Amino acid sequence: MDDHTEDVTMQGAVCPVPLPYKAQIVLGHGSGGKMTQGLIESVFYPPFENPALLRGDDSAVVVSPQGGKLALTTDSHVVTPLFFPGGDIGRLAVCGAVNDLCMVGAQPQWLTAGFILEEGLPFEVLERVTQSMRAAAEDAGVIIVAGDTKVTERGKADGIFINTNGIGWVPEGRDVSGANARAGDVVLLSGSLGDHGIAVLAARGELEFEAQVESDMAPLNAMVEMMFEACSGIRVLRDPTRGGLATTLNEIACQSRVGIRIDEQSIPVHGAVEAACEMLGFDPLYVANEGKLVAIVPADASEDVLEAMQSHPYGKEACVIGEVVEEPAGRVLMQTAIGSTRVVETLSGEMLPRIC
Amino acid sequence: MDDHTEDVTMQGAVCPVPLPYKAQIVLGHGSGGKMTQGLIESVFYPPFENPALLRGDDSAVVVSPQGGKLALTTDSHVVTPLFFPGGDIGRLAVCGAVNDLCMVGAQPQWLTAGFILEEGLPFEVLERVTQSMRAAAEDAGVIIVAGDTKVTERGKADGIFINTNGIGWVPEGRDVSGANARAGDVVLLSGSLGDHGIAVLAARGELEFEAQVESDMAPLNAMVEMMFEACSGIRVLRDPTRGGLATTLNEIACQSRVGIRIDEQSIPVHGAVEAACEMLGFDPLYVANEGKLVAIVPADASEDVLEAMQSHPYGKEACVIGEVVEEPAGRVLMQTAIGSTRVVETLSGEMLPRIC
Repeated sequence: MDDHTEDVTMQGAVCPVPLPYKAQIVLGHGSGGKMTQGLIESVFYPPFENPALLRGDDSAVVVSPQGGKLALTTDSHVVTPLFFPGGDIGRLAVCGAVNDLCMVGAQPQWLTAGFILEEGLPFEVLERVTQSMRAAAEDAGVIIVAGDTKVTERGKADGIFINTNGIGWVPEGRDVSGANARAGDVVLLSGSLGDHGIAVLAARGELEFEAQVESDMAPLNAMVEMMFEACSGIRVLRDPTRGGLATTLNEIACQSRVGIRIDEQSIPVHGAVEAACEMLGFDPLYVANEGKLVAIVPADASEDVLEAMQSHPYGKEACVIGEVVEEPAGRVLMQTAIGSTRVVETLSGEMLPRIC
Repeated sequence: MDDHTEDVTMQGAVCPVPLPYKAQIVLGHGSGGKMTQGLIESVFYPPFENPALLRGDDSAVVVSPQGGKLALTTDSHVVTPLFFPGGDIGRLAVCGAVNDLCMVGAQPQWLTAGFILEEGLPFEVLERVTQSMRAAAEDAGVIIVAGDTKVTERGKADGIFINTNGIGWVPEGRDVSGANARAGDVVLLSGSLGDHGIAVLAARGELEFEAQVESDMAPLNAMVEMMFEACSGIRVLRDPTRGGLATTLNEIACQSRVGIRIDEQSIPVHGAVEAACEMLGFDPLYVANEGKLVAIVPADASEDVLEAMQSHPYGKEACVIGEVVEEPAGRVLMQTAIGSTRVVETLSGEMLPRIC
């Protein structure tokens, strides 16, 4: 499986030549950006095609034969290192599933957890991770009802991988999707960008300075319920994880066939994150978050929803960052700090592999 | 994460000493046998404790707030090689989830699929796997509604790992659990043992002879529905995967606090599997199956259920293999071919790593 090259007959001689770029998986296919989207559209959509999958939201919503709408989501977690300021792979696995469910308006109820362990993993590490999952599950009010464990030989995995699945119910009347944004809507962001990505990077020792950054990792379901109390007609919710805010907004602009205009100066970025990004040449708009959400709401409800967000600890830095416009459909435009307007593209390639 | 040793201060000197056996994960923790059970009881049950999890069946059954009983299951698949006679990791991932659902009497409806891919994986391999998943899903009548893809660096995973989650409904009136066997019940087996394990082993080139063995991998939900038509009061269903029939029967004997007596001569094993097991020193009772089930049913319904199994292609070799008795509770006894009786233990250690 590991061959970079394949043998081809070339003028009679068999020589190893590099495969074309497209012919094998590279790290960029896991970036959450353009290459991930390309992989999904070319390899996963054609065989599995069905309306719930093609909708392309953070969770699939299916109509239950018993009545009601069920939300289902899956996420594998391969973050390295396993522990970092503000969180660890266990908390990440729980928050990731919980947040994907509430991004379609569902109330998370049950999780399942599948572990792939590498031979040689200390028990003590696994125990720290499961205790952390328990705490995060309590925090989110969900229960872990089923599990599975596989073990690979040394060198065939990397410590711990965790897959979590989330199952929840979408209360009647809620219709939340990346496809629902309309011109005139207001774009809200629940807080500062980039904390998770930079915290993980710092824990890898890849920064040449010491950054006091903690991951923002948090289960967002309680805040989301408060937002629905303020406005039952929330149109879009999405958490800007892999690919960052830039990629998330582009996904929404494409799904809804609208333009999105944002104002750079309105977007909160903590000082230490900004400093780290400047040194590394990163744009915080592309750095992963694990406890933030974008909400798109009708203009007349935006103040109420913003207030609800700000009244919750996970949304205290919430703010309006822009608006939905008709044109250019499928594009995100940003008014920069210096007053110009630039197109904000989807992430291409991979900036920070194994961030979640 | 990979250290075999830790530094300890010993009489003033820091020397690497092996960690005690229990202190780290070894391949046996993924065997499905005693060590897996030990890991579950010591590391997973304490933090996650809840009734659905502790029941210890193949799927969790939860009561839906919308009415009805929902079955949830998760399985990660790390089989190597990815392709083998009779199947591949894609078909395995679908059949595994489908079968775990029907083992609690549920009708499988939706699957989710989480992929962990290793950098360098050829696209063509991934495409073969997803096409195979599609075919298996069609075969089982389920749809794959959500997916996720992560990519690791080369050498940090092994080609493809797939986690599948299954979600289904348990029709009213069904109460199937490993805890429901009662003295006097009849034990049925749907067909021959060991085909999957030996097929994978042969594909690894680990046999010194050529074995004509195909994996038995199959979605069992259609056959299970026919069995319920024959008898709505089926007590126990379980598929003897990792750990084999011996481990499965021990689990049931413990959960139900009954004894199980089986007759060695009644258990079908194909000639090629028997030959391979004899050469390798394996007991087919411990070799993994992926398209077989054990059913425990009230004696007066056993003929009808057996007939239903035999009328389905996946159960044409089905037979009665034993009965449930009161004593010795928690034990499995086997009448051997030579007429003696021996205790059949749960698998200890690991026989065939990464078989599923």
